[in-house]
Amino acid sequence: MITIKPSILDPEAVAIKKALNQLNVATVAQVKRGQHFELTLAADSLTEAETIARQLCDQLLVNPTMETYVLEVKEMAVNS
Amino acid sequence: MITIKPSILDPEAVAIKKALNQLNVATVAQVKRGQHFELTLAADSLTEAETIARQLCDQLLVNPTMETYVLEVKEMAVNS
Repeated sequence: MITIKPSILDPEAVAIKKALNQLNVATVAQVKRGQHFELTLAADSLTEAETIARQLCDQLLVNPTMETYVLEVKEMAVNS
Repeated sequence: MITIKPSILDPEAVAIKKALNQLNVATVAQVKRGQHFELTLAADSLTEAETIARQLCDQLLVNPTMETYVLEVKEMAVNS
């Protein structure tokens, strides 16, 4: 899960908040936005999978200047 | 969490998968992409908060033709 750092203004989130409040469903006090990626890959252990995922985030998926991310690693049953 | 329906092709996810594999870090078999929104709003109960959030998703945040979503409702401590 990749989210924009709290210190960075997210104009799109501000616009979404305004639009949500114009629906008059409820008063939305804050909107935070982020991207979610689910990567399926082969690894010998959960630790190795985490190391790989962290490398892929750091090298391609995440912009470290503006974004921060949280990793969740899950084991999948493989259809043998 | 808003994700693209499995039946819908996601060209951006295909492109990201290709780019990730070109890093030669590991073989990524599949990439799924989605959007994550965190809405802070006032409600009298978790049930009411869920009803509101579902309305906001159905009316604005989610494109029902291509997307599906999962709601998670959490209570927040209010600084009185």
